[in-house]
Amino acid sequence: MSDKKQKQKKPQKLKARLARGFPDRSASDIRATDEMMAKIKTVYERFGFEPVETPFVEYTDALGKFLPDQDRPNEGVFSFQDDDEQWLSLRYDLTAPLARHVAENFNDIQLPYRTYRAGWVFRNEKPGPGRFRQFMQFDADIVGAPGVQADAEMCMMMADTMEALGIPRGQYVIRVNNRKVLDGVMEAIGLGGEENAARRLTVLRAIDKLDKFGIEGVKLLLGAGRWDGGKEGEGDFTPGAGLDAAHIELLVGFLTIAEGDDVEETLASAENRFEESATVLSGVDELRSISQVVLASGYGPDRIKIDPSVVRGLEYYTGPVFEAELLFDVTNEKGQKVQFGSVGGGGRYDGLVSRFMGQPVPATGFSIGVSRLMTALKNLGKLSGDAATGPILVTIMDRDRIGDYAKMAQELRSELNPLGGDGQPTGPTIPVELFQGNPKDFPKQLRYADRRGSPIAVIQGGNEKEAGKVIVKDLIEGKRIAETITDNAEWREAKAGEHLVDETDLVITVKRILAEQASDAQEI
Amino acid sequence: MSDKKQKQKKPQKLKARLARGFPDRSASDIRATDEMMAKIKTVYERFGFEPVETPFVEYTDALGKFLPDQDRPNEGVFSFQDDDEQWLSLRYDLTAPLARHVAENFNDIQLPYRTYRAGWVFRNEKPGPGRFRQFMQFDADIVGAPGVQADAEMCMMMADTMEALGIPRGQYVIRVNNRKVLDGVMEAIGLGGEENAARRLTVLRAIDKLDKFGIEGVKLLLGAGRWDGGKEGEGDFTPGAGLDAAHIELLVGFLTIAEGDDVEETLASAENRFEESATVLSGVDELRSISQVVLASGYGPDRIKIDPSVVRGLEYYTGPVFEAELLFDVTNEKGQKVQFGSVGGGGRYDGLVSRFMGQPVPATGFSIGVSRLMTALKNLGKLSGDAATGPILVTIMDRDRIGDYAKMAQELRSELNPLGGDGQPTGPTIPVELFQGNPKDFPKQLRYADRRGSPIAVIQGGNEKEAGKVIVKDLIEGKRIAETITDNAEWREAKAGEHLVDETDLVITVKRILAEQASDAQEI
Repeated sequence: MSDKKQKQKKPQKLKARLARGFPDRSASDIRATDEMMAKIKTVYERFGFEPVETPFVEYTDALGKFLPDQDRPNEGVFSFQDDDEQWLSLRYDLTAPLARHVAENFNDIQLPYRTYRAGWVFRNEKPGPGRFRQFMQFDADIVGAPGVQADAEMCMMMADTMEALGIPRGQYVIRVNNRKVLDGVMEAIGLGGEENAARRLTVLRAIDKLDKFGIEGVKLLLGAGRWDGGKEGEGDFTPGAGLDAAHIELLVGFLTIAEGDDVEETLASAENRFEESATVLSGVDELRSISQVVLASGYGPDRIKIDPSVVRGLEYYTGPVFEAELLFDVTNEKGQKVQFGSVGGGGRYDGLVSRFMGQPVPATGFSIGVSRLMTALKNLGKLSGDAATGPILVTIMDRDRIGDYAKMAQELRSELNPLGGDGQPTGPTIPVELFQGNPKDFPKQLRYADRRGSPIAVIQGGNEKEAGKVIVKDLIEGKRIAETITDNAEWREAKAGEHLVDETDLVITVKRILAEQASDAQEI
Repeated sequence: MSDKKQKQKKPQKLKARLARGFPDRSASDIRATDEMMAKIKTVYERFGFEPVETPFVEYTDALGKFLPDQDRPNEGVFSFQDDDEQWLSLRYDLTAPLARHVAENFNDIQLPYRTYRAGWVFRNEKPGPGRFRQFMQFDADIVGAPGVQADAEMCMMMADTMEALGIPRGQYVIRVNNRKVLDGVMEAIGLGGEENAARRLTVLRAIDKLDKFGIEGVKLLLGAGRWDGGKEGEGDFTPGAGLDAAHIELLVGFLTIAEGDDVEETLASAENRFEESATVLSGVDELRSISQVVLASGYGPDRIKIDPSVVRGLEYYTGPVFEAELLFDVTNEKGQKVQFGSVGGGGRYDGLVSRFMGQPVPATGFSIGVSRLMTALKNLGKLSGDAATGPILVTIMDRDRIGDYAKMAQELRSELNPLGGDGQPTGPTIPVELFQGNPKDFPKQLRYADRRGSPIAVIQGGNEKEAGKVIVKDLIEGKRIAETITDNAEWREAKAGEHLVDETDLVITVKRILAEQASDAQEI
């Protein structure tokens, strides 16, 4: 069309650029993620969980306002109006949509309902290094599970997941707390009641920063507030909860009672400190039940640990909360050694489904941050993301014989990738490519093969064709020989790694060279 | 928090409902899709394609205005403004974002660049039955491939994909045409030049409706226009291209020249009809090259067929276009038998990357409509989406011994799902569940097991515990026996399918029963 022709003559200066905070994903990232997710999925399925998925877009009101650190409605969410004027939003997590799904299909769902789902979620936040506006979560939930044994099972499943991914015992821990304990403690220091809801949230968020800012930072956030730069007037100022010094000490003392590994000691210490709070005692009682179940199932405090400092940022949790932490050191962007930290967590959210229902629907679940976990596994050398092998390249010497080359490529493709009786591939895929760039410059074709990590190139010029022959070039052997060659004449003579064979022996020769390369690779 | 308590006391009447056109996905759909996509991926990788993924959100201007049937800018796209006032859109296909990706990373990408990607795309259209506003596409593209042998390879890969999915030869065909041929034909009937761009688009869209409305419907759309109801004044009116009768006959005659299977006859017929159009002749020449390559590679016209009626709705195609059609009959919503039709297609889009570049970047690719293909495969009985097996259920008799039950579940889980030396599962997953609903009503636990398709329930009451025993209930055998039982006394006596064994024999008994069930199932 002439419109297109005009564009080609006078190209528009449209700039190709990613939208802020929305990254592309490389082949290596995709492969590593797929490998990781397959392992996680296997663990979830062993526990009887089945997949279910919700759409990317939901009515804004159905999602609710449960984002951490968002005080204004809809802040943090991408929203747009439908043509019937209803507001739609991109989901910001997978839990609120699951609650909608369960409520909408309540009569068809068999409770307790165990499900898992992996999916992308979206946050309308300021993007930064390592901070994206779309990221993937991998969730598992049980809806219709009133007892804390369900929370215990969640913790055990998180521990099993870490080990299935190759994270050694001792390098991870699942920390467990109970929002009821924290609520009781806050009541005890006078923060109970509707009128203190906002201050309670400020306290929870302050405690949630323990990992990031340490005890002293948390103390500032519980008191007058904290300057980002470390000193008054330096950086941004975060207003504090305004607690007095005695209450701050009481809270901070409470956060650190789980220093030892003796669960009963931790629980008794919590009970003793707040023995007059029924809320604390009930929360501690639930933690004791969780602890008994996980211990009976063989999960000691080296794997699942009761720890009163765990908060979880989301507002909708109503009971036990838990967090999967990786304990090995990494170097942060400032060059400091820090513990890797949280890769996921969750808790009990008994109020989330019942928002729609007018009847209580207890539920518990957790969410894994997929990219963060992938970074951790790459750090541990547990994921490579490398392709199994580069493609075998069928090169093009004579442009008028494309059909011949296409036929060779197709023959190799079928013969090297046979299917078993069940129609499934019998081994790892061996890719075969016909060169599709401009074939004029032959050395460019070999450079392409090199950059793609091709093990073999297939070459047939007019002379070979006439003689019914084809050249199978072992690119790995060829590279090895080339390193010993010093001049051009010697190079042409050497025909490094080239095998001139009958056309009919193409497949068998390629198979033989692949087998030799595999056995050489094993020797190294 | 008191806010939450208040909500529980006085539940809001928030309605749980899916947003219009955005569906949930069931376990069965997810499993079937995953199975299908794994097979497609294997075919693409055999051709040397590697994964790459772009984000869900792009700058609106980078996506361009290439949607079919959209005359106004941004119609059909979900868009929203960023906080820096730039317009963002949810991607409506995977091709426009790939073009952005290639242009943005042009210096790092090794051409020809073969990639594939599966992903959700979004259309802001009126939803209807079977018409969703989010759906999945699975694309493969070669960028930097100037020759039509790349288009030929795309067609062969589509054919291989259909067969890898179990669609028998003869039940699918890849139809191929060339936009240049259509452009030449339109020039020949006086629709050349910039001033006729809009009418040409109307003609293309009319031809694209051949499947849907038949020859007579297309004639109306090429002429005065068409009433949806079939008669004047009935249903909606679609304005036509306003061609005169002679030109309509010429066009329609051209669309049907591929009735026979003789490729050369089809091509010669096209050349003879428009021998004065250089554009037609060049387009036919490209089709002849494609035909030669696919024939040489063993793909006859039963699999890949030149057909001048293929259009493809998207505006950005510049050369060969192709479409994968399934030929078996299905019954449509009106109860009529119709051919299943298109499950995907694509073509050459040489202008799409160069919008950003100021230099030509030839490219070709195709896209599979994942849900549509899944529907087709389910119709053919090639996909079930069923789970391998229901979960083994550990029931709860004594609420104060949850730890015991959790331990049994965990033991079964590890023993029934052993890992090989490589840390990978050695067989299909056998799920094991601890009952997580309210345990008060024991028969409800067994009903739950029944609905979940559990093969085995594990039961241990106080008496069994005291004797160091456990009941392993074969639910499949139990159901078989139960069908022969007539009264309650007999029922209690029968203890249908129950095996009372030592606690230490739990795992071995479960394994034995699973093996028996598997061998019984094979006998049936």
